[in-house]
Amino acid sequence: MTERLATQFAFLAEVEKLKSVTRATPIHDASRPENSAEHSWTLALYALVLADQAAPGVDVLRAVRMLLIHDIVEIDVGDVPIHLANGTAHGSAEIQAAELAAAKRIFGILPKDMADEFQALWEEFEANETPTAIYAKSLDRTQPVLLNEQAGGGSWVDYDVQWEELETRVGTKIARGLPGVWDWVQARIRPWFDARGR
Amino acid sequence: MTERLATQFAFLAEVEKLKSVTRATPIHDASRPENSAEHSWTLALYALVLADQAAPGVDVLRAVRMLLIHDIVEIDVGDVPIHLANGTAHGSAEIQAAELAAAKRIFGILPKDMADEFQALWEEFEANETPTAIYAKSLDRTQPVLLNEQAGGGSWVDYDVQWEELETRVGTKIARGLPGVWDWVQARIRPWFDARGR
Repeated sequence: MTERLATQFAFLAEVEKLKSVTRATPIHDASRPENSAEHSWTLALYALVLADQAAPGVDVLRAVRMLLIHDIVEIDVGDVPIHLANGTAHGSAEIQAAELAAAKRIFGILPKDMADEFQALWEEFEANETPTAIYAKSLDRTQPVLLNEQAGGGSWVDYDVQWEELETRVGTKIARGLPGVWDWVQARIRPWFDARGR
Repeated sequence: MTERLATQFAFLAEVEKLKSVTRATPIHDASRPENSAEHSWTLALYALVLADQAAPGVDVLRAVRMLLIHDIVEIDVGDVPIHLANGTAHGSAEIQAAELAAAKRIFGILPKDMADEFQALWEEFEANETPTAIYAKSLDRTQPVLLNEQAGGGSWVDYDVQWEELETRVGTKIARGLPGVWDWVQARIRPWFDARGR
């Protein structure tokens, strides 16, 4: 049991590093970039708070677990902003391969049974096919949008994002799992783009 | 439904502010203080990873939910370090009253049914009586200890903490819910104190 505990704590020490991975989105008051650890916390809360928006078949607590671990691969790969390189960098084959290797390395620190469980959760999230993964992925697209709006523009300014680009890269992903949420978010943020002729 | 969504998103925007509440513990590389949002993320992971250490009767996913929201009151009250004022500040009646008012204000932003649910979760955590709350509280005491050790001393240096003080203020709380974990953690960190004659 002591050896098992040692590997569990080795994993928990390793994932502390996610606090040093910064994202394109600033925090609420635009004072600094958000990091991927605190982003993951926010998403787990999103999953709890928006549970009544989830489609039939969604396992909300499985989505919470998924969202808690979904960005751990960024310890090795870093965060790839969704609007970087006109939206072509995020999800490229190269990044996907690097993230898979990172998942195997980092989850592999855990005892075998837990490593398999976390790996399966992460792969389900990435595949984005089960109702639970689609719910989690839609939340992962929703929070940065509202945080950008709260911070006064955030990465929309940095990457000079146009409304149509946001709709394609982000809106369609939100609407897939959470159509009612996208309607609400759209009405909320559209004025920001309209006011800037974007 | 739109009005309900608006209150849910108002709550999610409010809790973004937890990212600006700093703690006494530094992050892994001692480059900056940890904040309470990323701390909460780490604890939710602790609850998942150390599930096989939980006593009978612990609901691990309830502990995860508890840990995700346990520090939200700090948006109004701030973090009260465990070693501040020789350990007398943390948990004082004054702080407890302020935290209760904060819980009512912040959870009260949510629709009534969710506000009640989050308030009950938070009160269960604070009361520290159910197996699930005791498990969650023990994890909340464990992570800062290991993070201090990872960062080279952290708040033990800042507050000149002696081994006996750590044992009283922290060790007994860890051991209450996780005796095996405290045995392991103790063996791990004791050399740090011994080497400094603390």
